[in-house]
Amino acid sequence: MKNIGNTIGLYPTPDTVVGTVIDGRVNWMNVAHVGMWGVRQMVISIGKPHYTNKGLLENRTMSVNMVDEGILVRADYVGITTGKETDKSKVFDCFCGELENAPMIKEAPLAMECTIDDVIEIPTHYNYIVSPVNTYVREDILSANGKIDYTKYHPVLFEMPMARYLRTGEAIGSCWKLGKEYLDK
Amino acid sequence: MKNIGNTIGLYPTPDTVVGTVIDGRVNWMNVAHVGMWGVRQMVISIGKPHYTNKGLLENRTMSVNMVDEGILVRADYVGITTGKETDKSKVFDCFCGELENAPMIKEAPLAMECTIDDVIEIPTHYNYIVSPVNTYVREDILSANGKIDYTKYHPVLFEMPMARYLRTGEAIGSCWKLGKEYLDK
Repeated sequence: MKNIGNTIGLYPTPDTVVGTVIDGRVNWMNVAHVGMWGVRQMVISIGKPHYTNKGLLENRTMSVNMVDEGILVRADYVGITTGKETDKSKVFDCFCGELENAPMIKEAPLAMECTIDDVIEIPTHYNYIVSPVNTYVREDILSANGKIDYTKYHPVLFEMPMARYLRTGEAIGSCWKLGKEYLDK
Repeated sequence: MKNIGNTIGLYPTPDTVVGTVIDGRVNWMNVAHVGMWGVRQMVISIGKPHYTNKGLLENRTMSVNMVDEGILVRADYVGITTGKETDKSKVFDCFCGELENAPMIKEAPLAMECTIDDVIEIPTHYNYIVSPVNTYVREDILSANGKIDYTKYHPVLFEMPMARYLRTGEAIGSCWKLGKEYLDK
């Protein structure tokens, strides 16, 4: 094993587009520094200089839209342009759910309208702790019994070390079952 | 789009094994509720009943070991057995870095020895905010210029809706570059 210093090796993480409303205009931002916070909440971590924070801190709502290959070019685009200077409101078609100021992406395979339950500040970032109120999915990504089926849906992932997007690959096995093979030995 | 209620749709997340020492014995636990916290820290979210918390809260260090297919059966095994009742110390070969009580997995493709910088408690979970002090990698997963190369290394991912492990697939494109195609239109 080679020691490469204090490098973060937790990647890949799922890529998302965060939707908000700032001064009455819809805005989108590409965010992949995300994760789980218990089993009912998510962390969306956004660098402080980003314009999106203005909307999030005022509204206390956001949308979290998952990215597949169909919207990846546009997702990356809303990560390399700032709403301070560019009107990004028309990059995606949007729809609204029950929350105010949480516009979601019609072309996304999965979109969550979320409340911001807490904002935990560190020197460089706002860490938003959010809960989905409603989750909207394209019906073709659901299993026969209505679950999100990752054999039908391949979210785009992100890795920082070489700054690339990766495909979600095939299913390997069942969690909480595979380990029984070890027990049986 | 179909509304499937307040379902978390942020998956897949990378699967990890957390290493700790409890009452002098090495212990391992499978944890996939993880994520990023800014760009220098990670969140490792662990349900309160888990035995691993005893070690983490006392030691204030842990290891975070990434899972590939070579260690997946054992990773799943250390998620379905508790160190309260089972000695899991011999499931993996381990090595130590510079931190105390952060045993790492020799067979893992990538292992981080981490300090616990903060513990943020919610009713059901301890959310550990951790930083890697050193990151150890198998040399065959590095690019020619020493970066973690996800075309050579395919971390196992986890999804909760159908409780399956997924493979990390191939690279699709470069972050902060793909979006220029949209700009050029």
